[in-house]
Amino acid sequence: MTEMMKQIALASRPDGAPTPANFRLEELPVPTPAAGEVLVRVHYMSLDPYMRGRMDDSKSYAASLQVGGKMEGGSVGEIIASNAEGFEVGEFVMGGFGWATHAAVPAVGLAKVDPNAAPITYSLGVLGMPGFTGWFGLMEYGKPKSGETLVVAAATGPVGSMVGQIAKSLGLRVIGIAGGPEKCKMAVEHFGFDECIDHYAYATASELNEALQAACPKGIDIYFENVGGKVLEAVLPLMNQYGRIPICGMIAWYNAGGLGADASQKGLTGPKLWRTILVNFLSVNGFIISNHWDRLGEFHKTVGPMIANGSVAVQEDITEGLENAPDAFIKLLTGGNTGKAMVKVI
Amino acid sequence: MTEMMKQIALASRPDGAPTPANFRLEELPVPTPAAGEVLVRVHYMSLDPYMRGRMDDSKSYAASLQVGGKMEGGSVGEIIASNAEGFEVGEFVMGGFGWATHAAVPAVGLAKVDPNAAPITYSLGVLGMPGFTGWFGLMEYGKPKSGETLVVAAATGPVGSMVGQIAKSLGLRVIGIAGGPEKCKMAVEHFGFDECIDHYAYATASELNEALQAACPKGIDIYFENVGGKVLEAVLPLMNQYGRIPICGMIAWYNAGGLGADASQKGLTGPKLWRTILVNFLSVNGFIISNHWDRLGEFHKTVGPMIANGSVAVQEDITEGLENAPDAFIKLLTGGNTGKAMVKVI
Repeated sequence: MTEMMKQIALASRPDGAPTPANFRLEELPVPTPAAGEVLVRVHYMSLDPYMRGRMDDSKSYAASLQVGGKMEGGSVGEIIASNAEGFEVGEFVMGGFGWATHAAVPAVGLAKVDPNAAPITYSLGVLGMPGFTGWFGLMEYGKPKSGETLVVAAATGPVGSMVGQIAKSLGLRVIGIAGGPEKCKMAVEHFGFDECIDHYAYATASELNEALQAACPKGIDIYFENVGGKVLEAVLPLMNQYGRIPICGMIAWYNAGGLGADASQKGLTGPKLWRTILVNFLSVNGFIISNHWDRLGEFHKTVGPMIANGSVAVQEDITEGLENAPDAFIKLLTGGNTGKAMVKVI
Repeated sequence: MTEMMKQIALASRPDGAPTPANFRLEELPVPTPAAGEVLVRVHYMSLDPYMRGRMDDSKSYAASLQVGGKMEGGSVGEIIASNAEGFEVGEFVMGGFGWATHAAVPAVGLAKVDPNAAPITYSLGVLGMPGFTGWFGLMEYGKPKSGETLVVAAATGPVGSMVGQIAKSLGLRVIGIAGGPEKCKMAVEHFGFDECIDHYAYATASELNEALQAACPKGIDIYFENVGGKVLEAVLPLMNQYGRIPICGMIAWYNAGGLGADASQKGLTGPKLWRTILVNFLSVNGFIISNHWDRLGEFHKTVGPMIANGSVAVQEDITEGLENAPDAFIKLLTGGNTGKAMVKVI
């Protein structure tokens, strides 16, 4: 009898926020690895906001997904069959296996994961793409200096929590923004932020701006941009001269559909944004971490020991079962998760 | 009999584009230099787009002008009385003397100008603030590389023409944008641009975008931002990955009143702009040249010889008489000048 596997495909492109109808669970035979390939049994699959962009038919980092194609994403799993030299059955690897229980993929480019060094889930979060994004963006474009003030949203997420904790370790004042009192408490108590502002408590950008102003008496030197929207609008007027804004994402706008803006963002016009960059001599840099893997070793060398000695804390939000991935992803896009979102597939 | 001087004051703040009624010509006694001061007889006064911002009551680089106060600006003139050691009558100096025939100012901070080394007008244009702005912004934030494509608007202005000529000398493909066929001809024939696009010939940003696309078959690597508005909107979709956008001004928006946007710019929403920075990994930097005087020596050492050997061409637009300064300034803001705008005061 043919052994079967499961995967989730893009059933249709979302119009605004994704719904369960945009996804389709499929069964198909487990593939056989070709020459140079390994067959991976996925253990944990990562859910990340960038995946929302792939669902649209618009220009982003990478080509859009085709309707009917398997949802893409990074996962960690165990090799259960190998047709590639140097990759043995029983080894763990991390790679782009998509939303699936199994994948036959070229071994070239797979990163081996040592399950004895750290929990394998870390390779998707704190020591993986999101943690690396936070560390790299902060160090490369944020150029943090002791005594400065940093603001980051999604403060308990895997990117924001890394940014905040590294900045704290370098002597900055760190203000988080998060959705709800529970997350704010976690940002301060678990991740060591100086303060965390609950954006749900402020209906408008100008109210949020006032709260930020109180938390940042010396203004803002670094705004690590991962959400856009109301937060960006509230932060902009508080940026100090020579401030830095690394941009790794803008989750608040992902559901607006490609280049569009939702109605509440009309205030943030291009000229206003552009003029703020000019008159405050800001440095604004977009980046994607996948172009900077050459710095991964440095990241692990720096942050690995910080996790071990407790100065970088970890928070994971694990959903059980591949079939629940669409709901968990929809929840992630509205901030319903707490910590690094992933799905336990096995 | 008391000797009298003339100056021009801000009579009222403009509502949109300045009109002659916003300026007032005044007569007052020529001042006597206090200890440490010199009395300067102004020969040439610079007109620059940034002065428009000073007329508003809004946050910009510097404090706004007070209504009733003397219009500010850089000038070059001759010392006619000195109360400061090391500054002799007959020497030429450059400084912020404002829109006036005479000024008594502290000698500290004045730059001496050698009238035998180059025409004194050069200290206001090609070798002064605008030329330095173009050179510094291009080198520091534009990071030009041979074979890349650069776009700059106001191509025959003192900033744009410097940017284009330096970029050409470094092996870039240089596309100018200017208003009218005469300026476009000058950009190509006098300043050596590869092509120059007449923005008057294209009513909308999308038409201008098509013309730019034809002129930039390999996309745009550096957009030197000095105008904003329709040009920015046309350029953005053509930016290559890892493109650079130094921002030194946005003249098209100056008349829109502080942070506002004119109606035709509604398309350029913040989210669209922000997303373009992210997905193309752009580096965007605002700057003001007055924070970088430490590089002036390097600039003069590099560009002085290029003027002498003709590889940097000069174009000046000189209006006679202080009383005509408001009209010349109003003309400058609508692109009516050709080359560096200044007023011959003596």
